[in-house]
Order: sequence, then C-alpha cells, then structure tokens
Amino acid sequence: MLSRRVISQLKDIFGPPNVLTSKISMEAYAYDSSPFIHYPEAVVFADKVEQISQLMKLANREKIVVVPRGAGTSLSGGAVPVHGGIILVLNRFNRILEIDPVNEVAWVESGVTNLALQQAAASYGLMFGPDPASQKVATMGGNVAEGAGGIRGVKYGVTRDHLLGLEVVLPDGEVVMIGGLGKYVPQIDLTGIFCGSEGTLGIITKILVKLIPLPEAIRTMMAVFGSLDKAGEAVSQIIARGIVPTTLEIMDQTMIRAVDDFINVGFPREAEAVLLIEVDGYEVEVDRQVESVVSICKEQGATDIRKATDEKERQDLWLARRSGNGALGRIKPAYMVQDVTVPRHKLPDMLRFVSDISKKYGIIIAQMAHAGDGNLHPHLLYDPFQPEELERVKQASHEIFTAALEMGGSLTGEHGIGMEKLEFMTQAFTANDLDFMEQVKRALDPHLVLNRGKVLDIA
Amino acid sequence: MLSRRVISQLKDIFGPPNVLTSKISMEAYAYDSSPFIHYPEAVVFADKVEQISQLMKLANREKIVVVPRGAGTSLSGGAVPVHGGIILVLNRFNRILEIDPVNEVAWVESGVTNLALQQAAASYGLMFGPDPASQKVATMGGNVAEGAGGIRGVKYGVTRDHLLGLEVVLPDGEVVMIGGLGKYVPQIDLTGIFCGSEGTLGIITKILVKLIPLPEAIRTMMAVFGSLDKAGEAVSQIIARGIVPTTLEIMDQTMIRAVDDFINVGFPREAEAVLLIEVDGYEVEVDRQVESVVSICKEQGATDIRKATDEKERQDLWLARRSGNGALGRIKPAYMVQDVTVPRHKLPDMLRFVSDISKKYGIIIAQMAHAGDGNLHPHLLYDPFQPEELERVKQASHEIFTAALEMGGSLTGEHGIGMEKLEFMTQAFTANDLDFMEQVKRALDPHLVLNRGKVLDIA
Repeated sequence: MLSRRVISQLKDIFGPPNVLTSKISMEAYAYDSSPFIHYPEAVVFADKVEQISQLMKLANREKIVVVPRGAGTSLSGGAVPVHGGIILVLNRFNRILEIDPVNEVAWVESGVTNLALQQAAASYGLMFGPDPASQKVATMGGNVAEGAGGIRGVKYGVTRDHLLGLEVVLPDGEVVMIGGLGKYVPQIDLTGIFCGSEGTLGIITKILVKLIPLPEAIRTMMAVFGSLDKAGEAVSQIIARGIVPTTLEIMDQTMIRAVDDFINVGFPREAEAVLLIEVDGYEVEVDRQVESVVSICKEQGATDIRKATDEKERQDLWLARRSGNGALGRIKPAYMVQDVTVPRHKLPDMLRFVSDISKKYGIIIAQMAHAGDGNLHPHLLYDPFQPEELERVKQASHEIFTAALEMGGSLTGEHGIGMEKLEFMTQAFTANDLDFMEQVKRALDPHLVLNRGKVLDIA
Repeated sequence: MLSRRVISQLKDIFGPPNVLTSKISMEAYAYDSSPFIHYPEAVVFADKVEQISQLMKLANREKIVVVPRGAGTSLSGGAVPVHGGIILVLNRFNRILEIDPVNEVAWVESGVTNLALQQAAASYGLMFGPDPASQKVATMGGNVAEGAGGIRGVKYGVTRDHLLGLEVVLPDGEVVMIGGLGKYVPQIDLTGIFCGSEGTLGIITKILVKLIPLPEAIRTMMAVFGSLDKAGEAVSQIIARGIVPTTLEIMDQTMIRAVDDFINVGFPREAEAVLLIEVDGYEVEVDRQVESVVSICKEQGATDIRKATDEKERQDLWLARRSGNGALGRIKPAYMVQDVTVPRHKLPDMLRFVSDISKKYGIIIAQMAHAGDGNLHPHLLYDPFQPEELERVKQASHEIFTAALEMGGSLTGEHGIGMEKLEFMTQAFTANDLDFMEQVKRALDPHLVLNRGKVLDIA
C-alpha cells in the first residue's frame, strides 16, 4: 500500500482526478492481454513529460515500482504490475507531432496507435513498416518497448529497423533525446537499448520513426500444400532465390479448418498447410514476382494456387488470416500463443516438431507463423476450467521453447519476455550475457523502480 | 612508459613476436587517416578472443588504455592513441566464418574487410548494404565501431541497419554474444550501443550482419545543373515523389573541374553542379525509375542528362566520383574533409552556406555529398606549410558544424567523433544527453581503459 503522503504527492503532480487508488479502479489495470493478474497500488494518467519526470524522482526516492502502460496489449505480461506500485498510463500522449515527407520521418507521442500513424502517413503516400496484428489499439510506445513486428516483417523488418530517435524519461527523472534523423545518429547511440527493453530502462514519450513509400502495387496469393514440410520448404526456396515477399504466412490444417468453420470463405479444408503470400513494388514488377513465387510453390508440390484477382478477394484472404485467433474460440475457450523464432531453414523442422508435441501431450495446437521471418505462433488450446490441461499446455510450451533455442532460435520474436518467459532466460543466454544486460539495467535504474520483474529476473 | 612487468605479461599473453615496443614500431601506429599523431607504448597483435580477454583484465588491473585498431582508416582519429597505452591490432581476425544464403546473413570476424565480405556474398547473389569509400581496406569491425555508411546509403542504409549480432570483449575482459539472427533479438538488445561507439565500450571480435539480394539491374546517370540550389532541390523532389534511388551524389564545380583535370573523362566543366544518380531493382522496373528521375531533373532545370549505356560508361561515371579525393591533390597538398549532415530539405541551404564560407575565409572548398542522405563531405583545401591557412580551415569547419547543428543536423554522418569533433559535442548535445552517454560508458568501463579520449570528453 502506498502511504497517504505518496498519494498526496502523486495528486500534486498529476492533479487529483488523474490519480486512481480505489479497489475497483485497480481491477481494470491488473492485467494486460496475457494470462497474468497483479494489482497495482495506484494508477496515474500523465499528459506532460514534466509530470513523468517528477513521478520518477518520487518513485526513486521512495523506491516504488512504476509500470508504464500503453494500450495493455502485451501478450507476455509487460504491463502487469507484478511487484505492485504505480501504473503510469500513457495513452494521453496521443498526438502525431509531425509527418515530414521530404525526410520521410514522423515524430509521434508514445500513446499514438500504430494504425493512427499508418493513416496519417498514408495521406502522404507513406507508411510505417511494422504492422502488428494489434495495430488498431497498440501504441507506438508499446511497439518500441516490445520490439513489435507484424506480417510485413519479412520485407519491411521490425520496429528497431525503423526507429530513429526517442525522447525518454530515465529512471532518475532526467529527460533525454537520443538518436536523430536518418544517418544522424549521435555517438554513443543509445536508441536501440530501449527497443525491446519492455519499459525497464526508461519511459518513452516521443518517437521518431522512418517512413517508407507505399508500394504502387500489391499482389496476394494462397498456395495449398499436402504437407507442412513442403510448405516450409517452399518458404526457404522463395527466400533463397532472392525474392523478398512482403508477407509469407503459413497456416496448418487445424487453423485452416477453424477459420473455414468460422467465416466460411471456401478455405481448402483438406490441405495440410497453406501459404499466404503477398508481394509488392512497382506495377511492372509485381507480376514477375508472382510468377517466380508460383513456379517455386509448384516445384515444391503445391496442389493449388489461388491468386486474388481483385481487392475483395485480397481482403477475403486476409480476413481468413486475421480471423485465426477468434476462430479458435470455437474449439476451446482459451489458448496460449507462443512466439518462438528459428532460423529460416529450420522452419520445416520446427513446424513438424510442434505437430509431434501436439500428439505427445494430447492437446490441440493450431499453427500459424510469420514463415518468412522464421517466427512461429503456435496456439496451444485449453480449457481454463481443466487445470490439468493447462499444465500440459505449459509443459508443451516449454518443450517448444527448448527446441527453438536448440535450433539456434529465440524465446520471442515480437511478444517480449515479460513475466511469461522470465524463467527461461537462463536457458536462452549465458550467465555472462545476462550479467551484461543486468549491468546496463542497474547502471540506469539502480533501485529497479522501472517495471521490476520483467525481462531480467533480478530484484 | 609501460613497466617491464606489464610488457612481460603482454608477451605471455600474445607471444613475444606479437608484442612491439620499439620506437620505430610505435611510429607506424601513431596515426590513422586523420591528421592526428600520438605514440602508443606498445602494439599487440591478437589472433584469439581469449588473448583479448586477458589483455583487458590486465589493462583494467593496471589502468592502461587499450585502443583497438582495424585498418586505421578513421578520418576522425578513432585509432590514434591520444592517451598512449596499447594498440590492439585486430586484422588477423580476418576469417569469413559463414555466409548463410537461406537466412541471408553472414558471420565474419572483425578484421575482415568490407570488400572481402562483398565478394564472398556476391558468389551467393547477395551483398552487404554499406559500401564505404574505404571498403578495400576498411575492416568490418571498424565499419561497426564507426557506423560506416557509403554511397548506397540512401537506399540501403548504414551499418546499424544491417547489424544483427556481435561477439564483444567487454572492458572487464568478459566475452559476450549479443543480438542474433533476424528478428531474434534478445531483450535487452545491446547490439546497437556498439555501433558508433568507436571502440570505447567493447572490442568487437565477431559480427553477424544481414545480407540482401544483389539487384538484378542497375541504371546510372548524371544530371548537369546550372546551380547548386537547383541540384539540391532536385534531390528533395526525387525523394519526395517516392523514388528510392540507390545512390544520389552531388559534386560542385570545384570538384567537377578537379576531377576533369585529373582523369579527363569529359566531365561538364561549366556546370555548377552535377548529380550522379543510380537506381536498381528488377530489370522491368529500372527504366521506369530512370524516366521519373530524368523528368524531375528536367523540371528542376537540369541542362543535360547523360545515361550510362553500358558498363564502361557506368564505370567512367563512378571513376569520376571516386577520383575526387585524389584529384584535389593537384590543387593543394592537403585537405580536411568534413562529414556534417542536415535534414534533406536543408541540403540546398547547406550547400550554399558552404560556398559562402569558402568566400568568407578565402579558402578553396570542393563540395561532394551523399545528397540523398543529407550527408555533406566538403573538402577544405590547405597547405600544411602555411599554418595560417590551416587555421582558417579550422575556423571555417567550425562554422560549418555550427550551421549544420542549427539546421537540425549532426556533427558526423559516418566518420565518427573521434578526437576531431570531441570539443563540439557540448554544442551538439544537451548536458543531460551527454550525462546519459557518460553513465553508460562508466557503467561498462569504469576505469576508462577503452579508447580513452574519444567520443566523450571524460578522463
């Protein structure tokens, strides 16, 4: 419990209506999009950088944990206050400060949603590369803090590939500007350490990102395969032949059938796997890319290839992809979604391994992957009222992590470590590597006031 | 002077033939490609990571400065041992460990030259994005440490855009692996802080970089302008219309004439400025990009446009660009090359400003710029036997820095801070921002043993 004195100081900083402490208010900020629940002791709404600076000075003096929160869409518990303390809500930082088409950059506040930025950029013929599935609500601050990706990642990369600069409130309350336009990166460049730091090193208030021209033309197609292996092999071949598709998504039969039952768009129910492939570029080149992709898929044994011939067919294909998560609710009431990555050439092995794990543990796993990035999102289905089933899901997840690491991959591609994967960090990194991360964390945040209990298991 | 005991320990670590201490040997390692000269106390040649780890433990115990050195091509004094100590030569770390075409990555040791990597990648139809002018000799470790760019930067970015992972010996001798394949970045991602750290935070031994497909087709052209302004405006327009050229280089009349006198390729001597423009991509699209570029240049008043019709003509155009530095030697025996950047839309202002400075100080300045990146390389010519002329060159440089910072640019695009721009850091950054850099430096290197006296003015 925070003392009356601290709460009174919070009210001085933020104004009384912007400080919540009632039990009922704490309920709403006890969770994010992960399965974890922990109650904060206060929730504050900031709309000025200076308030955040004062908050951090107070928190440091009093050794109170502060957890920054955007839209709360973290899948790994990034915004859950596992050590209590204060939730700092940032969604009032929602202004797009500048879209600069000549320098192809944008300055936004950290509470701006990814979609709002996309829309603002589009009016200049530009876009922001990363497009996480949560883009309608997820904030740019969260995108940076978690290192968000999305389905365009294979061509356009992830958040860190587009991040140029930040305004950050450090744990001691100092406000710094780091990075800068284009090549103009100050030495020593500290921008990158905040990308993926999950709110543990500083509170991001402003963000400078690269924008890129919207492609002139897009072509979308679906290739149907009789086995996951063949689909996985087609992915490797497409990349190995120098094609850079915009998206390269794989779905397995469980996912295909769930989606078909749900939205009934004539998805190939008998297929073992489909690839959803999109290419973009100049009008004159995209058809040539399509031809190459089609010929590789056929060589790899694709039994059918459907090209979207108009925008409606394209939207139908993407609706099928985007409906995956919802569709699974028809099979089981809950799922745990994993986020492991493997080197691209290991993708067929990993898809097969996850299938085997599904049989071994007697659980349903629907597979979906950003295949071009080697980033798998197996959905492990369970019923929360059957604790024993959840236990099997957790064990299966652990085997999936372990296999990904053994294949040279990682625990997470874009969902973060958060609380969920904390205990596996020692499996993923050497003691030296973890010590180095801890050294940087302690240098910036000696009292561990910022989002304690995330990423690194130190207290 | 290092004690006999320390020298004996160095010989134990590296073997006696790999430790130099003679006066004559120190001469060769007292300078790099900058104008600075300072003598080291010993030079050691490493070929194992373990030796570097032991060296750093020794250096920390004895508080001796260690300066890592690749090919010594730094233009800002990065490899000059301004505080004496030990030069650690890394060019025996020259193995390309792996080119992986499926994952489109390469692992190289830090002493591999940029060109060696390009050649190895090319045999797989791939390339490494950055192509600094010094690529024949400059090492990948230096590319990372200085944040090297090159003429392809406008399309393919700079080193940090292609850096995935590193093996680094930290100042305390610990060896860490950071970053990883593709999306698979560990949280907290510490890769970025070494890019541009100029050897002040760790010694890079292995590097994991992205590779990208070689373009199918390239088109090269030169546009001739009656004023620098118009050429600069054409640059802004090309970018603003969504074209992403591979290179977009500008040369002013001083540079054009010097080059024409030197290699006599029929360069347009009466032009006030030329743009050298290259586009790449699929065969079917490049001609379309050429048409757009040509039409924009004409709109902006280009008086002539020459397209290279074959590889020979293309090589002639690039020979002209690459001959710039050498050609200037015919005018004055020495030059100081600056490396400021400005936002793209300020490019015409900055080009004009530099011209005015040339008149104001009565010195010859030949202008050349990676215009697409807003990165200017004005060459300020002088005679080293006329100290008063050098003084004017320094004052003019200072005005150029200051103007670039006022326009929202930076001190350096790709040559680093080194010793040269150290005193201007307080002009470029706020006290808070510098404190933050210093905080990270001191956390990793409390005794300031790594490349002391570079980037940050602390001792």
